Amino acid sequence: MNKKSIVVQKYGGTSVGDADKIKRVAARIIDKKKSGKSLVVVVSAPGNTTDNLIAMADSISPDPEIREMDMLLATGEQQGIALVAMAIHEQGYKAISLTGQQVGIMTDSAHSRARIKSINTKKLKKELDRDNIVIVAGFQGISAEENITTLGRGGSDLSAVALAAVLDAEVCEIYTDVDGIFSTDPSIAPKAQKIDRISYDEMLEFSSAGAKVLQSRSVEVAKKNNIKVHIKSSYTEEEKNSGTIIMKKTKDLEQVAVRGVTVDKNQVRISIIGVSDTPGVAAKIFGELAKENINVDMIIQSSAHETGINDISFTVKSEMLKRTVEICSHIKNNLKAQKVITDKNVAKISIIGVGMRSHAGVAARMFELLSENNINIEMISTSEIKISCVIDSAKGKSAVKILHKAFCE
Amino acid sequence: MNKKSIVVQKYGGTSVGDADKIKRVAARIIDKKKSGKSLVVVVSAPGNTTDNLIAMADSISPDPEIREMDMLLATGEQQGIALVAMAIHEQGYKAISLTGQQVGIMTDSAHSRARIKSINTKKLKKELDRDNIVIVAGFQGISAEENITTLGRGGSDLSAVALAAVLDAEVCEIYTDVDGIFSTDPSIAPKAQKIDRISYDEMLEFSSAGAKVLQSRSVEVAKKNNIKVHIKSSYTEEEKNSGTIIMKKTKDLEQVAVRGVTVDKNQVRISIIGVSDTPGVAAKIFGELAKENINVDMIIQSSAHETGINDISFTVKSEMLKRTVEICSHIKNNLKAQKVITDKNVAKISIIGVGMRSHAGVAARMFELLSENNINIEMISTSEIKISCVIDSAKGKSAVKILHKAFCE
Repeated sequence: MNKKSIVVQKYGGTSVGDADKIKRVAARIIDKKKSGKSLVVVVSAPGNTTDNLIAMADSISPDPEIREMDMLLATGEQQGIALVAMAIHEQGYKAISLTGQQVGIMTDSAHSRARIKSINTKKLKKELDRDNIVIVAGFQGISAEENITTLGRGGSDLSAVALAAVLDAEVCEIYTDVDGIFSTDPSIAPKAQKIDRISYDEMLEFSSAGAKVLQSRSVEVAKKNNIKVHIKSSYTEEEKNSGTIIMKKTKDLEQVAVRGVTVDKNQVRISIIGVSDTPGVAAKIFGELAKENINVDMIIQSSAHETGINDISFTVKSEMLKRTVEICSHIKNNLKAQKVITDKNVAKISIIGVGMRSHAGVAARMFELLSENNINIEMISTSEIKISCVIDSAKGKSAVKILHKAFCE
Repeated sequence: MNKKSIVVQKYGGTSVGDADKIKRVAARIIDKKKSGKSLVVVVSAPGNTTDNLIAMADSISPDPEIREMDMLLATGEQQGIALVAMAIHEQGYKAISLTGQQVGIMTDSAHSRARIKSINTKKLKKELDRDNIVIVAGFQGISAEENITTLGRGGSDLSAVALAAVLDAEVCEIYTDVDGIFSTDPSIAPKAQKIDRISYDEMLEFSSAGAKVLQSRSVEVAKKNNIKVHIKSSYTEEEKNSGTIIMKKTKDLEQVAVRGVTVDKNQVRISIIGVSDTPGVAAKIFGELAKENINVDMIIQSSAHETGINDISFTVKSEMLKRTVEICSHIKNNLKAQKVITDKNVAKISIIGVGMRSHAGVAARMFELLSENNINIEMISTSEIKISCVIDSAKGKSAVKILHKAFCE
């Protein structure tokens, strides 16, 4: 018997937000099934379900235990898969819904941000062999202690990419509410272009630079397992739904110097002022933050004052501000630094493209453009395929327009 | 180490219908915990959750597959247990929620009306040993194929009684929205008395006669395992919450001839007219109905006409009407009977009491009372501890008043 090739699809919460949308999703799934594929479909919690559950928990406890929160939130996806399976049945096709536990999506015990450790494919393959469309609850798994866990932000995408990896799927299709990845935010630069193909590395930079379509860790899993990921729209007819394909670097991907421009306003800058300029101070600060699972993005250490005292600044995501300041206050006391100050009015602007490797002068041109337009650069970080600058958030949009015009139009 | 005695409590959906109610339930649970018991608490789906889920399914499919319906509905109880556990934590006590699958409540595969086959106590006992209050999702279990199943109407009560049985609990407390079992419906007969103690057999008759507080199959499991069941109010202060205790027959239970009067309007009568009076006809009819899982309550076979033709009438629950008529129409054709007629305007009125065994003349007195008041008796069925009559439903309430006054006031 010839094995059919497997396609994994993922539909987000807004795509299954009401009965009509669920029926349309079911029709789209069936269309793919008719094309002769074996189908595994990952579904998120419908519409506002998760928000409503969080509000319910809030009304009971301001700080609920995360194990119970996972128990509560996992019901959203479970409702989603049952409803999608029903809609497929109603249109005359075979489908079966499975929770994370039923599939055997094993995670560690870090509730609310668990990491997938392994996925059992036995049950999945059995149901595919029965010609079922298998509908899997995204965002959830089960720990070794048989507690229900959730995977945190972007968790359903991660479920889909991980399933595609263990099933050796030909593609992982992520259906979302945009047409694909764009060279920048079209609401800022109307000439923004949809990108047809993008490499894993570029996509990683887009994700970490603030593009919200797919989280870094999903891209990492795709890259590691060489899974082709296809970002598509839940609302566009399939013939016109070319989307963006994320895949290994290919020859034609090399042609472009700058693939896109991103702006991330979800950043805050924290500075520890008056730190003594002795070895090991930076290690101490960033070691403590790492221990508390706080991801630091950009770092600048000012040149030492004559007194042997300097300042250390770095950026973190906005939601980490409170916790980071708490930790830095401790560190400040230990290091006998002067003070901790924060700045929320910053934006990180990035230009991304694998072509930068071979195109010299891209960074210089970026700095020049910003300078010509009186946009002050506060911090810089670079990788082989990305250059990011922290600037005043008020100038974020105009910086995007300027850079997109220069590099992408 | 002295084993603490275990108490199982069950809270219905209205008892956990909103955040305030959930907090009050948590306080009540903690009060019991403080008294030194090990506690297992079964929780239903909060408030309208189940109705809302059914409406969601309806909007997708008029006749959803029952496996997926169970997948969907089971989320209601899962939400309930997480929220109750959070409320207990918030009040400073240890609790852990467990789904039917996590406990290991094994059922058969009859989705939407599964029967419990076994319950694994390992996980429960481990959590009790850790001094956790264990919050278990009612109404749900898991089949041998690891599909989520639901237990049908009254399922959470059944979960509670079954858990009490396997844990050898000292009592199973069922918290509900009434103060206990009454000698009859207080809205019909204002002098209705709460019954303090009632035997399993009497309670079985109350349940099957239409009292909705506890379903027959829960009482059966309690009886079989000799579990004391205590029906109490979720809204009454505990000191005043004497409720009704369902237990083995005791000496003092014998004193009363008639424990209560019930009326069940959820009955329809079906008659197959013009059946030939030959052996095996009744077996044929009721055999076919039994095969389709239709429970027949009362049966009357009219005395044969001179022609060797007679009529067979029986009652079933109203919700079974459509299915029953379909089956009877087939049977009618096979038996060459004349026609099938139905009557929805019937009520079953019953008097119940173990004391009837030793008190002669109770039945005669019942028939006399109804006759004196011009209430025509259409069907009669009796057991050792119950007498039921089918009458015109319009006369149901007045019959209750008359019988309650004569036997219970």
